[in-house]
Amino acid sequence: MPGTASDHIVSSFTDELNSLAQAIAEMGGQVEVAIENGTKALLKLDRELADLTIIADQRVDDMQRRIDDMCVSIIARRQPMASDLRSIVTAIHVANDLERVGDMAKQLARRSLKLEGINLQPTFYNGVKNMTALVLRQLKDALDAYANRDAAASVEVCNRDDEVDAMHTSLFRELLTYMLEDPRNITTCTHLLFCAKNLERIGDHATNIAERAYYLQTGKQLTADVQDLHRTQIKA
Amino acid sequence: MPGTASDHIVSSFTDELNSLAQAIAEMGGQVEVAIENGTKALLKLDRELADLTIIADQRVDDMQRRIDDMCVSIIARRQPMASDLRSIVTAIHVANDLERVGDMAKQLARRSLKLEGINLQPTFYNGVKNMTALVLRQLKDALDAYANRDAAASVEVCNRDDEVDAMHTSLFRELLTYMLEDPRNITTCTHLLFCAKNLERIGDHATNIAERAYYLQTGKQLTADVQDLHRTQIKA
Repeated sequence: MPGTASDHIVSSFTDELNSLAQAIAEMGGQVEVAIENGTKALLKLDRELADLTIIADQRVDDMQRRIDDMCVSIIARRQPMASDLRSIVTAIHVANDLERVGDMAKQLARRSLKLEGINLQPTFYNGVKNMTALVLRQLKDALDAYANRDAAASVEVCNRDDEVDAMHTSLFRELLTYMLEDPRNITTCTHLLFCAKNLERIGDHATNIAERAYYLQTGKQLTADVQDLHRTQIKA
Repeated sequence: MPGTASDHIVSSFTDELNSLAQAIAEMGGQVEVAIENGTKALLKLDRELADLTIIADQRVDDMQRRIDDMCVSIIARRQPMASDLRSIVTAIHVANDLERVGDMAKQLARRSLKLEGINLQPTFYNGVKNMTALVLRQLKDALDAYANRDAAASVEVCNRDDEVDAMHTSLFRELLTYMLEDPRNITTCTHLLFCAKNLERIGDHATNIAERAYYLQTGKQLTADVQDLHRTQIKA
């Protein structure tokens, strides 16, 4: 594992900020893999992959603590100006969101263990599959927007959260109909309802990250008004 | 509304840290009220209270931003030593947890709007009521442990999270049986399942706060090992 610059030499402030950005990107990558594996474990009821995903979450948690320590150490030694300080505090928040997303992935994996022995029908899990693809894209785009301090991309992520919510609502209704059709579906579909909810929440965390990226870049809160304004501009 | 010390005069560093602690306590109080109101709105299907709870969450969000700004401002001007810096960064995390708890309360209120017109049977919601009482106690104790830097109290909160989880599991199973008994219960019980999950997550946030309080006081992570150790000491 390559050490960060700050492990070895007294580097420049810019180098330290870059190391911090790199650590966030690395954590983001780990979390994306966790979502993929968590969903795969769920859809294939793959116990081994579920166990691996659950264990791997420990690394994500460690990563958050490491990023926290990096931030505290940078602030303590460098005494950064307000704008740099703001960006470091934002890194703490983004790492927090990623840690929560890692938790969601772990919960998907755990849920798969509860479904063991049940024959999942493709109709049940197609929605989960599609929703995973959408929230993964949201998370990737949010992390890119954050890394590139791209306000326009942040707005797009936030706008697209409506799609995630709509998909969640439709999946919720669909699963409910399976339960109403046949009581034997109730247990399975209940678990899948929670998986859908987890995915929706991953989407919310992606939005949080995008909102923070927007604020870093513009100094303004990305409110619903601003989103509407941007939406109109895009349409116009 | 009384202004914080830092609004008006150049106060001492200790005063500023006290203002920060007071802001967290205030936010904690707001969030506790939100949980109480959210659950009440749900159990009584009280639309007015639900609306009030949803609107009040805006104030909790504003409070988080204010605490964030206070922290950045204190760090920028005071350039605190490592241990003070650590406690300020912890305040950022605690405010983050409280903001999430506020969201959970808002979701309980929103859920009540979806249940409108449904006649909730007491058997359905007794479990929710008991669980609310338990997680409210967890949150209060965690905030007290944090305010008083009380490591032993933090450990107790973390240990008691098992109780929350057990109560959630039993409620989950109970609601599932109502669904299996009569398909007409499916929609209502599904919504209540999510409420139970929200309450369980409030318990998790309380645990997070307790873990951070423990770390602030001892400089050590409150791992499962440490919890077991304390548990043995209490039993011995």
